[in-house]
This record gives sequence, C-alpha cells and structure tokens, in this order.
Amino acid sequence: MTATWAGDGPVDPSAPSAQPLEALFRPRSIAVVGASASPDKAGYAMMQALDGFAGELHPVNPRGGTILGRAAVAGLGELPGPVDLAVLVVPPQVVPRAIEEAAAAGVRAAVVCAGGFAESGPEGVELQEQALEAARRGGIRLLGPNTSGFMNPVDGVSANFMPAAAALRPGTVGVVAQSGGVNLAIAFLLERAGIGLRLGVGLGNAADVGFPDLLDFFADDDATTAVGLHVEGIADGAEVVAALRRVTARKPVVAFKVGRSDVGDFARSHTGSLTGSYELTRAALAQAGAVVVDGLDEMVAALQALRSVRLPAAPRSATGVAVLTGQAGPGLVVADALGARGVRVPELAPATLDRLGELLPPLTYQRNPVDTGRPSATFPAVLRLVAAEPGIDAVGVYALDEPGVLDPVSAVEGAVGRVLYATGGPAAVVEEHRARLEKLGVPLYASPGDLAIGLAALVSDAAARAVPDAPPVAATRTVGRDLDEDEAKTLFEANGLRTMRRRAAADRASAHDALDELGGPENPVVVKVLDAAVLHKSDVGGVHVGVRGHAELDAAVDAIDTIDGTSPRRYLVEEQAPGGTELIVGGVRDAVFGPVVLLGLGGVGVELGNEPVLRLAPLSAERAAEMVDALPAAVLDGFRGAPPVDRAALATTLLAVSDVLTQHHDITEIDLNPVRVTARGPVVLDAVVVRTPGEENHVQHA
Amino acid sequence: MTATWAGDGPVDPSAPSAQPLEALFRPRSIAVVGASASPDKAGYAMMQALDGFAGELHPVNPRGGTILGRAAVAGLGELPGPVDLAVLVVPPQVVPRAIEEAAAAGVRAAVVCAGGFAESGPEGVELQEQALEAARRGGIRLLGPNTSGFMNPVDGVSANFMPAAAALRPGTVGVVAQSGGVNLAIAFLLERAGIGLRLGVGLGNAADVGFPDLLDFFADDDATTAVGLHVEGIADGAEVVAALRRVTARKPVVAFKVGRSDVGDFARSHTGSLTGSYELTRAALAQAGAVVVDGLDEMVAALQALRSVRLPAAPRSATGVAVLTGQAGPGLVVADALGARGVRVPELAPATLDRLGELLPPLTYQRNPVDTGRPSATFPAVLRLVAAEPGIDAVGVYALDEPGVLDPVSAVEGAVGRVLYATGGPAAVVEEHRARLEKLGVPLYASPGDLAIGLAALVSDAAARAVPDAPPVAATRTVGRDLDEDEAKTLFEANGLRTMRRRAAADRASAHDALDELGGPENPVVVKVLDAAVLHKSDVGGVHVGVRGHAELDAAVDAIDTIDGTSPRRYLVEEQAPGGTELIVGGVRDAVFGPVVLLGLGGVGVELGNEPVLRLAPLSAERAAEMVDALPAAVLDGFRGAPPVDRAALATTLLAVSDVLTQHHDITEIDLNPVRVTARGPVVLDAVVVRTPGEENHVQHA
Repeated sequence: MTATWAGDGPVDPSAPSAQPLEALFRPRSIAVVGASASPDKAGYAMMQALDGFAGELHPVNPRGGTILGRAAVAGLGELPGPVDLAVLVVPPQVVPRAIEEAAAAGVRAAVVCAGGFAESGPEGVELQEQALEAARRGGIRLLGPNTSGFMNPVDGVSANFMPAAAALRPGTVGVVAQSGGVNLAIAFLLERAGIGLRLGVGLGNAADVGFPDLLDFFADDDATTAVGLHVEGIADGAEVVAALRRVTARKPVVAFKVGRSDVGDFARSHTGSLTGSYELTRAALAQAGAVVVDGLDEMVAALQALRSVRLPAAPRSATGVAVLTGQAGPGLVVADALGARGVRVPELAPATLDRLGELLPPLTYQRNPVDTGRPSATFPAVLRLVAAEPGIDAVGVYALDEPGVLDPVSAVEGAVGRVLYATGGPAAVVEEHRARLEKLGVPLYASPGDLAIGLAALVSDAAARAVPDAPPVAATRTVGRDLDEDEAKTLFEANGLRTMRRRAAADRASAHDALDELGGPENPVVVKVLDAAVLHKSDVGGVHVGVRGHAELDAAVDAIDTIDGTSPRRYLVEEQAPGGTELIVGGVRDAVFGPVVLLGLGGVGVELGNEPVLRLAPLSAERAAEMVDALPAAVLDGFRGAPPVDRAALATTLLAVSDVLTQHHDITEIDLNPVRVTARGPVVLDAVVVRTPGEENHVQHA
Repeated sequence: MTATWAGDGPVDPSAPSAQPLEALFRPRSIAVVGASASPDKAGYAMMQALDGFAGELHPVNPRGGTILGRAAVAGLGELPGPVDLAVLVVPPQVVPRAIEEAAAAGVRAAVVCAGGFAESGPEGVELQEQALEAARRGGIRLLGPNTSGFMNPVDGVSANFMPAAAALRPGTVGVVAQSGGVNLAIAFLLERAGIGLRLGVGLGNAADVGFPDLLDFFADDDATTAVGLHVEGIADGAEVVAALRRVTARKPVVAFKVGRSDVGDFARSHTGSLTGSYELTRAALAQAGAVVVDGLDEMVAALQALRSVRLPAAPRSATGVAVLTGQAGPGLVVADALGARGVRVPELAPATLDRLGELLPPLTYQRNPVDTGRPSATFPAVLRLVAAEPGIDAVGVYALDEPGVLDPVSAVEGAVGRVLYATGGPAAVVEEHRARLEKLGVPLYASPGDLAIGLAALVSDAAARAVPDAPPVAATRTVGRDLDEDEAKTLFEANGLRTMRRRAAADRASAHDALDELGGPENPVVVKVLDAAVLHKSDVGGVHVGVRGHAELDAAVDAIDTIDGTSPRRYLVEEQAPGGTELIVGGVRDAVFGPVVLLGLGGVGVELGNEPVLRLAPLSAERAAEMVDALPAAVLDGFRGAPPVDRAALATTLLAVSDVLTQHHDITEIDLNPVRVTARGPVVLDAVVVRTPGEENHVQHA
C-alpha cells in the first residue's frame, strides 16, 4: 500500500482556515512600511516582489508619493482600514515603534527584514526584546527579524526582498529555513528541479514565529505534501521535536542540519543561534520522523520523491527497492549508490524471473537490477511485473530518452505510486516528460545519482515511522545528591541491571574482610576509591584490578589513600568480571533536547571516530533495540574473540538508563562506563550519577 | 599562480594531428553499416545522429534504397572511395565479417554497437576475439563492441544511437566512460550544467580502444581542458595509471569508480569487466593524479571548476580557500561543506581584515567566510582584496541574483583565475550570467553544495600533483621460496628495520638455551612455531607470550608440538617487545595494479571499519609520508596511552616493504603484522613473505 499525490494542482485560496499564521502567510491586505521608489532600495524590491499580489497593497512612506503606480500613505495610521500584514523594511532602531503603530492600526502580522538584532550583540538583543514585546502587546505575529521574508506562490504572496521569487512556480512543497538566504536558495533549487513551492519561509532570528509554528502550519495545510527543513541551531528542542512528530505523522519532512564541521562562530553571528550538537540534532530530527540529509541538493532530490510518493512504515530491512534500467551502466550506478546508502535491492522471486525471461531478450541481467537492454514494447509490462512483486516496495526506473523507443508516461502505467523515473536527454524534452509524469504523481529525475537519493529517501521516511517512541514520562523523583558508585549501582540494580558482587568498606579492615568474602586464589578482586566527588577514578589511581591476597590489597588501599580529597576515604571491593567487549551506556539532560540516552564503544572505538548512538529519552523497547542494532556488526557478533552481544539484555540496559534519567528530574548525567558484555550478559562495572542543580549540559561533539 | 582557460571557444577542425585515433573520432567520411529507413531501428537512429555530419556520409544496406535522403550502397565494397570510419549497427554474428569487409574497403576505424560479445559468455568471448583479430589484420582501430558510440560536438560527429546527442553543445570537457549509457548520462548532465563537451566516448567492452588510448588522446588534444572518467573495472592497471599520469601532468582528470557496494555480478554481465578492489582502484586513480569523486553529479560539479581553473600543485594543508557571500546562510552551508571535505578555510590576515572593515558594513562576519551583507558597490573590491591575500588560493562566491544589486561579471573583475561563483535565481537569468562569466573563464554554479564540490576539487587536484612518485623499479631478484619468520625478519633487518633479539631453535634444548640467553625474571620471552607453512600462527596456538622460566617454556613447546604440520618442528624464541600501538604494514602484488603497499591499524581498527591505506609501489619518500599522515590522528598522537608514532621511522618501514616487494619479482605477499610502535620506534614483531609462483593476488575489500 502506498499513499500517492497527483501533481501540483490548484488550491482554493478562499478556503476557510483557523490557522494562527493565516494573516501572515495568506493575508488579504498588505502594507509595506519603508516602501521606496528608488530601485536600489530594499523597500523598492519588496514592492516589486508584491506587485502581483491580488489583495490590497499599500506602500507606506512618510514622504508619500507614488511607488510602482500605487499611492503611498505617510503612516500606518493613515491606511483606509486595517490590513492583515505589515512588511517592515525599516532600520532596526525604529522597528519596535513601527510594530506599535501597526498594532494600533489593526495589523495582525508583521515581517521584519532588518538585521542588527539578537545576532549582533547585547544592544540588538535588547532591541529584539522590545520588538517582540510590542508585537505580543499588540497581538501581532512576527516573522524575523533578520530575514528576507517568505514566498507563497500558491496564494500569490511573495513578501521577500528578491522580486524574482514572486515568479516561482506554485506547488506542494513547504520550506522552512532558519536563514532567509537559504530559503531563497532552496526555492530556486526546487524550481530548477521542476518542483513547485507551497510556501517558503526564512525564519531569521525567529523572535516569535519559529520552527514549531511553521511545522504546525504545514501539518495542518492540506496543500502541503512534503516539507523541507534547514536548521542551523535549535533553541527549543522539545517543542520542535513535538511539532515535527505531528507533521511526520501526516507527511514527510526532509531535514538538513548545518554543522558537520566547525562553523559555530559564523553561525552565531548570522542568526544568533548556537549550532548545538550536530550529531544529537540529527538524531533528534530522525527520531521525530524526518529524513535527515547532508546538503541542500540532497534535500531537493529527496523532496522530489517524497512530495508524491510515500511508502508504508517499515524498517529498512523490510523495504525492498528494484532498479529497472534501459541501459546497464547507469542502472549499475543507481544500484551502487543504493547499496552505499544501505537500501535493500533484493533478488527478485523465481516466478518473477521466469516471467521476465519471457518479456526480455536473453543476455540482459534480470535479477535486480533488471536491465531491459534497449527498451522495447515490453517495458511497461516489465515495470508492472517488478512493481507488483510483494518483496518490492518501490521501483527506480532509468531510461535514456530515445524518442520513439519508450514513452515515459506509458512506461509507468500500472506502477504509479511506487515508481520514480530518471532519464537523460535534452533539457526541453526532460521538462516535457516531467510535466506529463507530474500529472500522474510520478517524480522525474535528470540524473542516476538523484534517483538513488530519491529512492533512499522513500526508504528512510518509511523507516523513520517504523519505530514507535515511548510517551513522555513525568519526572517525579529526585536523587537529592550525586551518588557514589555503590549507591549508583544499587539504583541500577533496582532497575534490573547486573553488577558484580561488591562490598563498600569504610576502612582498611573492612576492605580486608571484603577480600576474604569475595576473593580467592582464582578470584582476584577490584579495589576502587568510593567517593562521589572522584569522577575519573582511573585517572587518579583509584582503580586497582587483579588484586589477589592481603598484601596486594594493602598496596591498593595505600595508593587510594594518596588521592586528594576531603571526604573520609572509603573503598569498594568487588569481584572481578569475566572478559568481554566494553561499551559505554550513558544519559545526559541536554540543554536543548532534554533527556538523551547514549550507547558507544569503549575508548578505542571512540578514539577511532566511532560516534556514539544517541536517542531522545524516554526510549521505547523498539527504540532501544534500534540503538543496539546501530552498533558495528563486528562488535555485535563478538569483538576480537569476545562473546556476542546479547541484544535484548543490552536493550534492557538502555531502557534502565532511560527510566532512571527521565524519572529523576535532578539527574543531569549518568555514565555506566564500562558496561562489559560478558558471556552471561551485560554487567555494569562502573556507574556514575551526577546531579547538578540548576545546570544543564550540552551533548558534546565526540 | 593559477592556470586559467577562457571558455568554450571554437576549435579549428582542420588543424593537423598525428593522433592515432584521428580516423575514429575526427573522420572525414563515414559509412553506417546496417543503416535503416525504419524509425524504430538503431540503424535509423544512428543515421539521424550523423545527419548533421559535414563530411561524406554513406548508409550501407544490402537492400539499397534511400535513408534520410541519402542513397544507400549495398555493401562496403561499393563505396565510391575509402572512408575513415565504419559504424557497424549489425548483429554480433556478422561483425567479424563486416570488419573484414571494411578493411578491404580501406576503412581505418570502426564503432561496433552490438552487444553479445565478451560480456555474454564463452561464445561471445570467441566472437570478440574474431572481431579484434579481423580489426588488427586490417589495420582498423575498433571502438566497442557493446557501446552506444561517441559524440564529438566540436568536430560535428555524433556516432551514437541517441540522435539528441548530436545537439550537445561543443566545449572542452573530454569524457571516457566504460559504459555507453553512462557516457550519454554524463553528457546530458554536463549539458544541464551548461558545460560543453569536447568528446564523449563509451568504451563498452574495450576490445581494442581502451582507457589508455583515450587518456592519451585527451592528453595530446589541445581542445580538451579537463577529463571525466567513469570506471567499472580496470584490466590493465599499469597502462591506465601510466596514461593517467601523462594526462594529469597537463590537465585535470575527475574519476568516478563504481563499486562502493557489492554490484560485481551485474557489472560483469554488463561490460564483462571485474570491478576489482574499489579501495585500491580509487587509491591508484588518485595516486596517478585524478580527483576521485563519489558519483556522476559530483563529477560534473568538479569538472565545472576544473575545466577553467587549476591551482598550483600544493598539499591540502597549504591550500587556502575563502568564501565570500552576499547572504550569510548559504555562505555557512558552503563553509560547512568545505570543512567536511577537509578543505582549509583559513582566517584572513589582520591587514586584510582591517581593510575589509573599511569596505563592509559593521555587524557582518568577515574573518572567512566573508559575509558582505546584502552586496553593495564595494563587492568587487572586497573580492579582489580577499583573492589577493597570499594565504588564499581560491575564492568561492555565493550571491543570490538580485538585479541592480550586483552584476556577477563586474563582481569578479580582478579575481579571474581563482574564483568560482554560485548564485540562486531564475534559470534564464542564471544561464545568461553563466554565458557571460564563461567568456571570462569563471565557472558559475546554481547551488551552494556544488560550489563547495568545485572548490574541493580544485584543492584535491592541486594536492594530487604535490606528491612525486618514485620511478619504476626493475625487479631483478628472487627469494626463491616462502620465507619463515626468522628468514623474513633477516631480510627486513637488511633493509634497515628493527626487530627484537631472537634465536631460531631447531629443538627443545636449543630453545632452553635461547631462553637463558634472552630471558630473565623481568624479561619474559615470546615462543613461536617457526615454519613458513604455518601462516596464521596465533590461530593454531603457535604464539606464546610472556614466557618466564623453563617450566613455562616447556609448556609452550609442548603446545607448539601439537600443531599439525609435516616439517621438522622448529621454534623461535624472542625478547618480548615493549608496549605500543600495533599497526599492519603489508605488500601485495595485485593482479591488476602490480605491487601495492598497505598500512592499517591492528585488529580492532580493521574490525571497526578503518580501511587500510593503499598505495602503488614503488613508494617515494613523500608518498610513504603521505600514507603515514593518513592514519587517524588519535593513532598518530599515541593511542590509549601508547607512545606517539615516529612518523619518519614508520615511513621508513613502508619504504622497506616497497623496496623488498618491487625488487623481488617472485614475492606475492608481505605481511609485517604487527609492527608495534614503541617509544623507541617501530619494531617488526612478525613477518611473512609469500612467494606463489604463477599466481597473483587481488587486493580484497577489507
């Protein structure tokens, strides 16, 4: 079963809506404050961009005059009646005043283009606060400041300083970009790919209208079939994630997060936002159902597919893609790219292969990819056959455009809703095919690589919906203080995790008693400093493994006693664990996204660049299992002779951390490091629980 | 200093050339054998494609008649005179005969389109042999079989079954694709990006004309300024590498190798080629000077830059790129992508920053990227200033197209030869800017991501030329047999490498003597089986570390004596080495590329997916240093408390393996595994030298 959508059809702009951003994005009347008759001014460009607006458009300029054939009024107070939207193209210093005047004139929404607000330093922060205050008092929704505006080709409103954006083709793709410039860049990339725009918005500083508002707008907007999201930094993680979940439940979202490399300085100067943790933001976006991509071109190729085709929710391993190609070489390029993106291109069923053998010339490869040789009259039947196989959820077609050999529209007959098409040929012909295929809801690509991106996006979107998340947990408990290792282990034991037998010893004699109880000639013990204030025990000589006999115990205790610290010295004596792979299981309360659970390899893996797996808590059982499956296969299968990982037991460990972290509102960090995966399951060898009242953490780049 | 080229200018087709492929790619007269008047036949499409050819064009068809207004002759023997090129659009079975007839008629080159040759099984292999034999006897150069042909828009010859390819715009980019379909796909991607084609060739089965011929053609062809290479599998590694070196010394090459994922089965069925080792092929292409990319779209974006701009040879760390942007958001996207691709975007010099402060409004970021805010009249001066800074080799400009605000051509004044430009705007405007910028030799991109790819390609091309390779070595020596560990270590000691002190013991008593000599209470020894036939000593219990005293030695010897094997049992007793990171240094004689040196991490790294670094031997000192620098920084800096890597000493180890491998023609494999990087430098802990006469290896995917 697939959901399809059939082209950039017309939308009735008179349809009623209770959307709170209605006055902003679908205004009936607009005033441009700072409109100018000088062609080199932004106030002129804005008037040009709005020139085709079908509703009332009023230039506002203290000097009056005529601007682009329209009589200017001297101030908002002199408008003939209230307008929905005021576009403010004025210097930052006068913005708060202009908003007050707009409110007085009955304006319901405003776009503020000027920069010089929160992105520029303390004075700008103050100015932005004043503007926001004025807007809130006056009941005005505010887009910006520091944005180029928005384009809504469907409703014919382009409140943007780039007049050419008014000519963008209407369509069904919604765009919300943190940057006004990127909003425009994406819009023109979509246009170039033949994709129409529903509404494109640059948030700028997002003083008022932000990601959650736009995501809700697009979730509710029936004219939107897919959404592109450009993120520099997110301030309100929980709200964005919640809004994103609401959208992705109804339509696909493709998200691009800036910050693979260290560009934080420049980003801060731009929209005043911190880029935050790149890996965590990507993980959060994906967990909320978005298809996360690496760049704008990839976003556009993904949207090309997802605006028209959506596959049923299914894990990556359960979604099969077929490649059908008229020319072997490009088909191979597509299949190779799909493999590299982790997309399954399964061998076709024997019955399908038998039937293919009847439809196709001998000597072509048919198992999947299916190479038809130079396409012939059987091509549509071959496509229908492949698309109908139960193991195949989507088909990517590549066929060079050879007039008279294959007509793309007849080729896709019977496979619409699960087919993406790519071709090579003169641009004019490609565009003609695109227009015809679009009416059927079949995306057309001009490159094998983009076809692979589109197919992979279908699979990622299906996979993102396949794992349910746990409902939010009310954090009702507290730990009250940092826990020492013994207390932390007790807490996790209560949550079902295994530890080694241990004794907390308040003095040397007790430690010797513990050795007698736990150790033996074949059973060395581990002796550790027991002090919640000592976080990195190994680094200060606070961990002694392989301790056999009382003399070695005394040496260990002597060493521990030299560690700096104020609390009375206590010791933990513990049975030594059997061998196995060492993993790190952790939790952190991130300042942006809240509780986060982390699963990583021990030291070597981290140093070799294996990023930990991050997910927002609370975890569902399925989400915990997904985290485990994300470990490298070599680790899961038993690393360097270590026993294989008991996946269920490791998932339980993750769930315990999720539970403890989300239930206690004063825990800021949990480190189970290491958790050793023994032949008898995971054992927590060390545990740290940190409570830092009033201070939250940022997940760091690993 | 930068080399520039100034646009797709006209080329004089009458210019003389001694190029051996002249008759094939720049024929004065053509016969199409199998020409057809039926529009659904390939023989009709081929005639259509050649319809605009300015020279003589003869359809050949046994039934005669008129084809596209030209009278057909019944056979090649009935041509009015000799023709340069015969295009054979006939079934495979009659191809050898048609080539014989062509030779008899004085034809000098032939294109064979039909499939059903070596790619299709033993009978096809035989048929291909016959066709090649006929061509060689008749002095005919043969393109194909199993190809769609070639397109040469500069000279007006499109011998290709896709007629639309005849309308491709002429230009200076050469393309050689293993697949005829991919050749067409690339040509239309270039066209879409506004890039003209010099000559595009699909090799198909490459029975005669192959990669080396085409690379030599492009090296010599003054009308070619950059080359795109599509590789499925290479048969003749040394020849391709040598030809590639000849091209890249004169002009840039961008290469895409298929095979990131496992697509070997399909590839074999396609052009009959083995895909070979993906990693080794990429390493070889890069070592020969190519810019290696991950897909066709990336190839096109790289060619967009490199056809017009080439930076001076310099290591990656010595090449600086600046980003100049009219809109902060897209500039941030470009800078982020550059960082992710390892391109240096250095902070500008204080003097430059001072001057920028005078030219730009306050509150924009200026350190690099340079954000001009909405571009103003100072933009050209800003670009000139940034481009002139000694630390900056190339500048990427992004500016949305706002008419009246910034004209791209005046913007780049004074920076031509080191600037790439990207914009967003309506397609027609972008194309107009492109045409104007092209005349200046300034590439124009329509996306921030492609601009970053272009800039990264300039840096990669410069870096590929910065490391000299060693001249070939004549392999004059032999080892004569597989070496045991003791012999192998002796060989490498003679080449300057360090080992631990050791004794080969022919019996138990000698082993005890060796222990007395080498061991002690504080100095445990390692006891190993000494037998060239036992390759994986650890796996069979043949390695015993930490042996202290005679009882432990006896136990080790007992264990070794239980290993299966026919040779008289011998033992190696060795001092135990101090701690350190373990690396693998190896050599292999690859069936395609010849001697290859390998540097990898020990077991853990390999299992975690860290691919070994591969380079073709013989290594130069600079190449060996480059391999060492490619190790993860965490390893080089001293891994988990291990001493830092002595880079020069490790490079010497690589050179020793290179020397031994290239000097001995009967060595097929060398494994120094592990080489332990101790505080006193690298020590070879185990050494294997394998001689397998008459059998060569394929480098495996790790």
